[in-house]
Amino acid sequence: MIECSWCNLNEEDRQYLLFDSEYWFVFLADEQDYVGRSILVLKRHCGSIAELTEDEWKELRYLIKHLETCLKITLGADFCNWSCLMNSFFKDSVPNPHVHIHVRPRYRNSLVINGNIYNDNEFGHHYALKKKEQIKEQDRKMVYQTMKSWLNSQI
Amino acid sequence: MIECSWCNLNEEDRQYLLFDSEYWFVFLADEQDYVGRSILVLKRHCGSIAELTEDEWKELRYLIKHLETCLKITLGADFCNWSCLMNSFFKDSVPNPHVHIHVRPRYRNSLVINGNIYNDNEFGHHYALKKKEQIKEQDRKMVYQTMKSWLNSQI
Repeated sequence: MIECSWCNLNEEDRQYLLFDSEYWFVFLADEQDYVGRSILVLKRHCGSIAELTEDEWKELRYLIKHLETCLKITLGADFCNWSCLMNSFFKDSVPNPHVHIHVRPRYRNSLVINGNIYNDNEFGHHYALKKKEQIKEQDRKMVYQTMKSWLNSQI
Repeated sequence: MIECSWCNLNEEDRQYLLFDSEYWFVFLADEQDYVGRSILVLKRHCGSIAELTEDEWKELRYLIKHLETCLKITLGADFCNWSCLMNSFFKDSVPNPHVHIHVRPRYRNSLVINGNIYNDNEFGHHYALKKKEQIKEQDRKMVYQTMKSWLNSQI
């Protein structure tokens, strides 16, 4: 069985930690194909959302609300796509899945950061699986700081 | 604003109703690109999962567990992809979204129904957005009856 990378986060993995709650971490995703894209990672090793405890599930509801509000207020998202897929783990013959949830904010209008324009060309449709556009590094840092600051000031 | 089709279900829409709980309907999806694919539809008109009430959220946890167990036991699914996207509603200039959640069971091995073989060729990867294979009508009915019977006998 392959060691779980979510259970062995190093300092580099944590550099884009947005929010740290009792049962979950929220990270800004490496992939910023949809600006503000984030991942909620359960702190405990658990294989599926069907196995979450009542307290983990309760806190997840709060975090979805908190993060969706953040993405709407700080970046102007119109709504969010939420998904819990876990596909990659099942490439292994002995899968060792760890619950994590993807959130992709979706934008009807262009998003402008430091003068750079980002468009959600698939708005109203399924997110693209292989979107080529990449965010500028300074814009990623600004998105991270803005979201982190909002998420941690509204508790 | 366009009238909500989930709030105005007719008899034909309900023909594949699998399970009816206090706050949610569970339907076998029209698209059976992943055999057993289902949809959880909130009974109340509500625009995002961030706005679910505590009771709706609590029941959703139970339904996810119930449905995932059903898909594993009755069809042999290895795990499930869960998603709440809501994209289509946002094609309209005045969106009128209604919370619904997709579940796609995923299969490492072939699934055989009435002698017909169904393969999840993307196992370990993101679900295909436009999968061509379609289920045979008699197999759809068998899947529906088997799942419905299991879901309603285990309460």
